[in-house]
Amino acid sequence: MQIIDARAEDFADVFDRVVNARRESEQNVSRDVAEIIAKVRAHGDKALSELTMKLDGHHFASEEDWKVPAWRCERAYDELDGELRDALNLAADRIRAYHEAQKPGPRDYTDDAGVRLGHRWGPVDAAGIYVPGGRAAYPSSLLMNAIPARVAGVDRLVAVTPTPKGEINPLVLAAAHIAGIDEIWRIGGAQAIAALAYGTDRIASVDVITGPGNAWVAEAKRQVFGTVGIDMIAGPSEILVIADEHNDPAWIAADLLSQAEHDPSSQSILITDSQDFAAQVEDQVDVQAAMLATGKTARAAWDAHGAIIVVETLDDAMPLANRLAAEHVELAVADPEALFAQLRHAGSVFLGRMVPEAVGDYVAGPNHVLPTGRRARFSSGLSVLDFMKRTSFIEAGADALAAIGPAAIALAEAEGLPAHAQSIRLRLK
Amino acid sequence: MQIIDARAEDFADVFDRVVNARRESEQNVSRDVAEIIAKVRAHGDKALSELTMKLDGHHFASEEDWKVPAWRCERAYDELDGELRDALNLAADRIRAYHEAQKPGPRDYTDDAGVRLGHRWGPVDAAGIYVPGGRAAYPSSLLMNAIPARVAGVDRLVAVTPTPKGEINPLVLAAAHIAGIDEIWRIGGAQAIAALAYGTDRIASVDVITGPGNAWVAEAKRQVFGTVGIDMIAGPSEILVIADEHNDPAWIAADLLSQAEHDPSSQSILITDSQDFAAQVEDQVDVQAAMLATGKTARAAWDAHGAIIVVETLDDAMPLANRLAAEHVELAVADPEALFAQLRHAGSVFLGRMVPEAVGDYVAGPNHVLPTGRRARFSSGLSVLDFMKRTSFIEAGADALAAIGPAAIALAEAEGLPAHAQSIRLRLK
Repeated sequence: MQIIDARAEDFADVFDRVVNARRESEQNVSRDVAEIIAKVRAHGDKALSELTMKLDGHHFASEEDWKVPAWRCERAYDELDGELRDALNLAADRIRAYHEAQKPGPRDYTDDAGVRLGHRWGPVDAAGIYVPGGRAAYPSSLLMNAIPARVAGVDRLVAVTPTPKGEINPLVLAAAHIAGIDEIWRIGGAQAIAALAYGTDRIASVDVITGPGNAWVAEAKRQVFGTVGIDMIAGPSEILVIADEHNDPAWIAADLLSQAEHDPSSQSILITDSQDFAAQVEDQVDVQAAMLATGKTARAAWDAHGAIIVVETLDDAMPLANRLAAEHVELAVADPEALFAQLRHAGSVFLGRMVPEAVGDYVAGPNHVLPTGRRARFSSGLSVLDFMKRTSFIEAGADALAAIGPAAIALAEAEGLPAHAQSIRLRLK
Repeated sequence: MQIIDARAEDFADVFDRVVNARRESEQNVSRDVAEIIAKVRAHGDKALSELTMKLDGHHFASEEDWKVPAWRCERAYDELDGELRDALNLAADRIRAYHEAQKPGPRDYTDDAGVRLGHRWGPVDAAGIYVPGGRAAYPSSLLMNAIPARVAGVDRLVAVTPTPKGEINPLVLAAAHIAGIDEIWRIGGAQAIAALAYGTDRIASVDVITGPGNAWVAEAKRQVFGTVGIDMIAGPSEILVIADEHNDPAWIAADLLSQAEHDPSSQSILITDSQDFAAQVEDQVDVQAAMLATGKTARAAWDAHGAIIVVETLDDAMPLANRLAAEHVELAVADPEALFAQLRHAGSVFLGRMVPEAVGDYVAGPNHVLPTGRRARFSSGLSVLDFMKRTSFIEAGADALAAIGPAAIALAEAEGLPAHAQSIRLRLK
């Protein structure tokens, strides 16, 4: 962790290094992934079976080794602790409500030239969701990916998840029951992405693949992009907290640690206008990290990537925030609107002192799949739109064609496309 | 070209082959592209200079060899033939009007639990547009890429275009003047994509890259995806015409040829319910192709990839259309709405007998950058949204946090993330 004084002479350079620090794996797995994809395309289920035995230690002896039956999800749901079941349902209901209102509408109008124009939106036919196995098997993540797809109207919703040595997370199964997943295949890695993109005898291909994964999964998604749609490439999580001295330092420390505990490459940054408050938060991070079950991970992330930046005024924080374009931004001040108005790039924003980022991870409603690694400069959180597509349309009668057709003929001729011109000219006669 | 009878016994197989036929280059350029990108990242402008000399035969002797000055664009515009200038302006005005109405709105509401939720949209800071050189240097394409970016509110709009042996298309410069491009760099290929994504001393990086290109450009866009945003991977153009016998066969033949003349790998398909009409269109294609300046290309595409499918009724055409998920679909019938209601996957639809697809290429208003190669199953035409991103936000007071916080604590504990739970618990005390 470094404490950085924004008034120091070398601040621009120091801050540049924070912005440009690489936290993502630079592992070059593209050739390995290309080989795995080629294998699955060539040998289908046989390749899946071999790769799953080799990489996950899971053997497909029976149908249930391939695919989790619906009754297992229902049973996992029924066996949940009551409080947890209610919490998952509350989360699902709130996510559903938020995403319902995201559904885009059609357009249909006739302009001054008499041309009818517009668009319609429709869902993709089938979507695949990657659910990591092991430590990162989060039921909340399944809900955040599956519910927008369902709300979009996707007919067939498929999950893939590795089950190392056969182990499945019952919480994930319960979440799959709530979200109404149609198929759960016990495959993971690049081979699962290949199966979803190209299909095998058992597994029909899908149109869109979303969901988090390791470097192999991310590279596989990149390689099948264009054959199917994918969501944004995801990197390690991050939070930027902008806070004045009127906050409880313990609260802010907990918020910083809540990102740090995800992964050793997570990043937590505090920008404040008070040197004293900075020191208090630093102390609180140390105190709390020592008591956390996830303290080792949190400590590693905070030590390697954490930062506290002290600025003259909080307005000075906003250009820095726009450079960082962080996944999560907390504006822990009495009047967050004034700062929010200056924030151009962020995945999700938490306004005021009472909303820690963790609320957004689970139950607030907006999606927790958000752009990381400065990608909020150009991309958005997962939404219903990721599972839909738009068809534009054009209609014109003879008069409307007479109004705009000659210009199209002139342009087609100039571009050397005479059949284009001819298709209009014939109709104008 | 093949004539296919949908009532034949082997139709399912024959149609499968049409749907799955590969028209896109299977060239494996990924290693070449990776090398070019690595070169540009390591050596910046020097690499650009060397690659441009080697690949385009263009030498950067002066500043103007690097970058087209604004006065050249203005002069190209002033020197345009008057009719053509008016046509380009009409196209730009209509594209602008259509895309203005695409701008998404904010959301801001407080739900029953007292949680304030919503989102804001904002433009990316900078966008780069690839403009192919040579035969495919279309001014209309520059307008279709640049105007949505401008409408989105993008501050810095950069074009890159190869100028083989120094040659620039004056129509493209005139279009750049109309669209208000801020910088035009005379570079192309994977090296231009790398420069836009990573920046060099001369060329500042951008946030989003769009625009058509060859296999190298497409692969480069795929490789920089995630560092910047990109539009959909584009393949050869295609049209599906669904027409009854009450059409003029010459009109429909011209429409089929207007796609075929783009490229030998373009595809034109007619589905009709009349055997006689099918034969008449086939004859007309032969007659017109023989008279076209682009006849050789059109003939090659039609012979290799063209098809006429005869169905029992036009309703039978619609499941086939949904399998094809074509870039352009013409519904050349008296009542196109009934068929349109059954069409789930298409890039853009042309309703009725009087709108040939070419109108949509230039002056109708909707974008002509559309999903090809069955990608309309999951992707949409270029729009203002490609140059914008959404930030969600959450605000809650003590009561709202008390209502939803405990569920988040339960989920965080279950997922093994105690700092998440703690950040909420501290605020509930």
